[in-house]
Amino acid sequence: MFQSFEATTRPEDGPPRLAALRKAMANAKLDAFLVPRADAHQGEYVPARDERLAWLTGFTGSAGFAAITCEAAGVFVDGRYTLQVKAQVAQDFTPVDWPKTKLGPWLAERLTDGMRVGFDPWLHTVKEIEALRTALGPGIAVLPTRNLVDEIWEDQPPPPQGVAEHHSDEIAGSSSAEKRAMIAKALRDAGQSAAVLTLPDSISWLMNIRGRDLTHNPAVLAFAVLHDDGRVALFVDPAKVQGLDLKVEIAPETAFPAALAALSGPVRVDKATAPLAVSAALEQAGVDVVWGPDPCALPKARKTDAEIAATRDAHLRDGAAMVEFLAWLDATAPQGGLTEIDVVRQLEGYRRATNALRGISFDTICGAGPNGAIVHYRVTEETNRPVTPGELLLIDSGGQYVDGTTDITRTVAIGPPGDSERSAFTRVLQGMIAISRARWPRGLAGRDLDPLARAPLWSAGQDYDHGTGHGVGVFLNVHEGPQRLSRISEVPLEPGMILSNEPGYYREGAFGIRIENLVAVTPAPKLGDNRDQLSFETLTFVPIDCALVDRSVLAPAETEWLNGYHAEVLEKIGPRVSETARNWLERATRPI
Amino acid sequence: MFQSFEATTRPEDGPPRLAALRKAMANAKLDAFLVPRADAHQGEYVPARDERLAWLTGFTGSAGFAAITCEAAGVFVDGRYTLQVKAQVAQDFTPVDWPKTKLGPWLAERLTDGMRVGFDPWLHTVKEIEALRTALGPGIAVLPTRNLVDEIWEDQPPPPQGVAEHHSDEIAGSSSAEKRAMIAKALRDAGQSAAVLTLPDSISWLMNIRGRDLTHNPAVLAFAVLHDDGRVALFVDPAKVQGLDLKVEIAPETAFPAALAALSGPVRVDKATAPLAVSAALEQAGVDVVWGPDPCALPKARKTDAEIAATRDAHLRDGAAMVEFLAWLDATAPQGGLTEIDVVRQLEGYRRATNALRGISFDTICGAGPNGAIVHYRVTEETNRPVTPGELLLIDSGGQYVDGTTDITRTVAIGPPGDSERSAFTRVLQGMIAISRARWPRGLAGRDLDPLARAPLWSAGQDYDHGTGHGVGVFLNVHEGPQRLSRISEVPLEPGMILSNEPGYYREGAFGIRIENLVAVTPAPKLGDNRDQLSFETLTFVPIDCALVDRSVLAPAETEWLNGYHAEVLEKIGPRVSETARNWLERATRPI
Repeated sequence: MFQSFEATTRPEDGPPRLAALRKAMANAKLDAFLVPRADAHQGEYVPARDERLAWLTGFTGSAGFAAITCEAAGVFVDGRYTLQVKAQVAQDFTPVDWPKTKLGPWLAERLTDGMRVGFDPWLHTVKEIEALRTALGPGIAVLPTRNLVDEIWEDQPPPPQGVAEHHSDEIAGSSSAEKRAMIAKALRDAGQSAAVLTLPDSISWLMNIRGRDLTHNPAVLAFAVLHDDGRVALFVDPAKVQGLDLKVEIAPETAFPAALAALSGPVRVDKATAPLAVSAALEQAGVDVVWGPDPCALPKARKTDAEIAATRDAHLRDGAAMVEFLAWLDATAPQGGLTEIDVVRQLEGYRRATNALRGISFDTICGAGPNGAIVHYRVTEETNRPVTPGELLLIDSGGQYVDGTTDITRTVAIGPPGDSERSAFTRVLQGMIAISRARWPRGLAGRDLDPLARAPLWSAGQDYDHGTGHGVGVFLNVHEGPQRLSRISEVPLEPGMILSNEPGYYREGAFGIRIENLVAVTPAPKLGDNRDQLSFETLTFVPIDCALVDRSVLAPAETEWLNGYHAEVLEKIGPRVSETARNWLERATRPI
Repeated sequence: MFQSFEATTRPEDGPPRLAALRKAMANAKLDAFLVPRADAHQGEYVPARDERLAWLTGFTGSAGFAAITCEAAGVFVDGRYTLQVKAQVAQDFTPVDWPKTKLGPWLAERLTDGMRVGFDPWLHTVKEIEALRTALGPGIAVLPTRNLVDEIWEDQPPPPQGVAEHHSDEIAGSSSAEKRAMIAKALRDAGQSAAVLTLPDSISWLMNIRGRDLTHNPAVLAFAVLHDDGRVALFVDPAKVQGLDLKVEIAPETAFPAALAALSGPVRVDKATAPLAVSAALEQAGVDVVWGPDPCALPKARKTDAEIAATRDAHLRDGAAMVEFLAWLDATAPQGGLTEIDVVRQLEGYRRATNALRGISFDTICGAGPNGAIVHYRVTEETNRPVTPGELLLIDSGGQYVDGTTDITRTVAIGPPGDSERSAFTRVLQGMIAISRARWPRGLAGRDLDPLARAPLWSAGQDYDHGTGHGVGVFLNVHEGPQRLSRISEVPLEPGMILSNEPGYYREGAFGIRIENLVAVTPAPKLGDNRDQLSFETLTFVPIDCALVDRSVLAPAETEWLNGYHAEVLEKIGPRVSETARNWLERATRPI
């Protein structure tokens, strides 16, 4: 199993570790020390070695940080984790409602002039530290130091040693040499001599390599410098890339700072993602630093035709596994006796049975009844709930395949659904269809489409408190920037970008609904006045539970989309599944 | 009649005037001179005295400007006026496609280092001149000078002498003293000692006065300074405000520059609307200038409950006139023989018959058949077209009443409509209904709602190349900022703001469609999860032509909205119209 259901931390481990950290702080003459969730690559997933926040506090959420002073120990988490943090940390720690309460003001209240705050410069970005220094003012020093957690963590795991492999040029649609030449030209056009890369997915994309360093995420943990002539220096444990003929300079990560100091500028650094240690190394050596976005981010987001074609295959394979799973669920769940964990195991089993599964894109979210309303729910043995007839079951999951990364949510009624579940599901579906059907003038950003997904819920006084969609990589991160469907995303959508389309609705203590397909931006088929428009190609082909659809409120075009989608699901997935599943699929895709 | 149908300029007058201007430029040692459409108040309507662009070039559109060099005479107009400008200017003038071609680059191509560009500092904003100076670089001087057009325009009309009147506190819902105290507090909070006001509608709103200086627009042309203690100095011809007890310092406009120089800062000036002469006068006198938006703009946009109540009355009165008109049109037009001018006259007649009409909000746009596709069409004797059975007729009009400003567009089929007209009309209606029905979380801007109005057209490969809606005043400007429904509007919508809701569709050479109601932002009635939402109250009550609606493509909620709206129209307007009109209204509002 790629997924485990155990709690990995215990609250009672926190207090002695906190005491040890405070002793180390005293030795280092620090009045406060920062313990982020982030590693040096600012990723969503970090290796066990970098789970400092969980090790110190017990909190295992995917976002957050701690600030430790001599008297206080704040654990900053957002609304998703309010309940979880309370269950996971001991009384010595104080959960802080972030971002409502920001780090700067919180520290300012607890420190006085002349005091010193320490942080590991590899774990914080320039942007973060700038904001903190502004908030604290000149009286309090914010100082890069050794990592004090690493000093006291005796059995800290070693860095991951995942062996890297080539990602085929055929799937990528572009060789690493071509990519490097393209980005190098962008650097020359901007008058920059090099760019520092610290994001594993940017480096993995640029080099056409994939790794095994992280759970759920096939990026290779490494740093790199891309020169304006296309040369790359890759900083990674040579053992990890031993068998590969990468045609680039390779050095261990320990050589990275010295290599930075040897550059001649101007060198592009991404203020929002690069560790402060990077720009500090450059500046100390007198190298001219230019702030600018990671130059791989946008080119990586614009998938090639080959990447889109490969992703289509991955989605058909994954769709077939999902259909086998849903057919099994429909046959099994209404009798009772299943739990959330049973469901997760079974689903992973169907994906494994494809013989192509390289990992799951993230821990499956499987929430029955009220657990469905917890947006980032991850079932453990403690929270495991029976899948009960009369309730909804929300399953958000995905697979990593060599040819693509999938991410799909289906919400199904176990037995006949209630009226308010059905009304809300239908509104969520209307929003999801609005995005699926959307055509829009080239140049619009995710922000401009987001309201189309929400309008049906808004009109009923409802909404959902998360974005409508995130970017998705190809056999890479399931959450990828810069493209998003979100109220705050100003990045223009461009052909080739893959996004999720996942409106939802959550009623606390009762039920949760989310419907998610992946879509790819494409030039819209010519129609009407031949305006230059973009539209979405749907990549995910899995039935939507029609028992939850109130046909009487749908517009004719919405019904037509749903029936057309289901016909396509049957056509594409029908030939790929068992007879039992096909029989179920035929029923599930009948026109409404 | 408030509207005239004559051409007011002749192309052949242009060349001799251009020659005279070039002579004046030579005398003043200028290599270029700018002739904007704007007056010192940057308004949409300007007094005859300020119609310099039309006088010099012949072009009478509501937006544009000319740049005259020794050899070139560019008339910069946007896409709305491409055809019109060609018909109105002589060959000596060159129409320039603006904003695609910007003034700076155009001039830069035609001037060389050491040359001098002159402009009247009362007719250009700081923002405009800054942009021009940046584009031209340090080699070319951009110099405030006397107005050379005024020098050569022998029979230039005098400034308007419209007598001002009180606008009742009851309609305004707030006395001038209250408004001044509120804005003065905002100035004190911002640490500013005064604000300079140059926008007539801001001053008229602040003082609760209305005037007769401009066609279609009851604002008083004046300048003002508002001090941080609530005192106001009003710069206006004293004869215009003689009978009013305004309790403020009054001085002629000629005293304005000296009064500016006598201020002590910091003084707020709106860079986007104040003439450069204002900030120049302050800066020359050493007064500290702070750039900031006109402090009246937002408070004016947030209408009081009294203003909304008054506006409702104005709309019922105007709606009754519109219904009389539409009943007449329906009875008369299908037989043939009417022209666009006949229609405009008849409509103004019905509005006059209310005995409350103080003016029309703008020249009625009445376009039959292909003329409907010209977005800012204004019929003249030359363009006047028969209203022909089988065609669409688009009528966009409004009335100025003491209690409110109206603006309404209806598109009607003269005889049975064609299929593509009907499909397009239905899509426009779906967009218009989407805005009418919208509920959204407080904090969103017009940009966030704009896509809802366009999505039905987008899905058919269609769109319209104008905003979805503009702000509207109360017995004030029919185009009022800062609120807008537009792809580029970032101003959050707030309760009390009045906007138009006017999606459209235009097929060049064939037909035009627009449906426009005015709406007011209001806290949304509690519903669903009791989220803090806003919604629109519809203010306009006039039937929509159901002969143009294809019911089969509407969503149930759309049909319900249309039928509910028509029931409300009948209920509110039925008791206010003649028997003939009521009979027509009953048929026109039947449920579909």
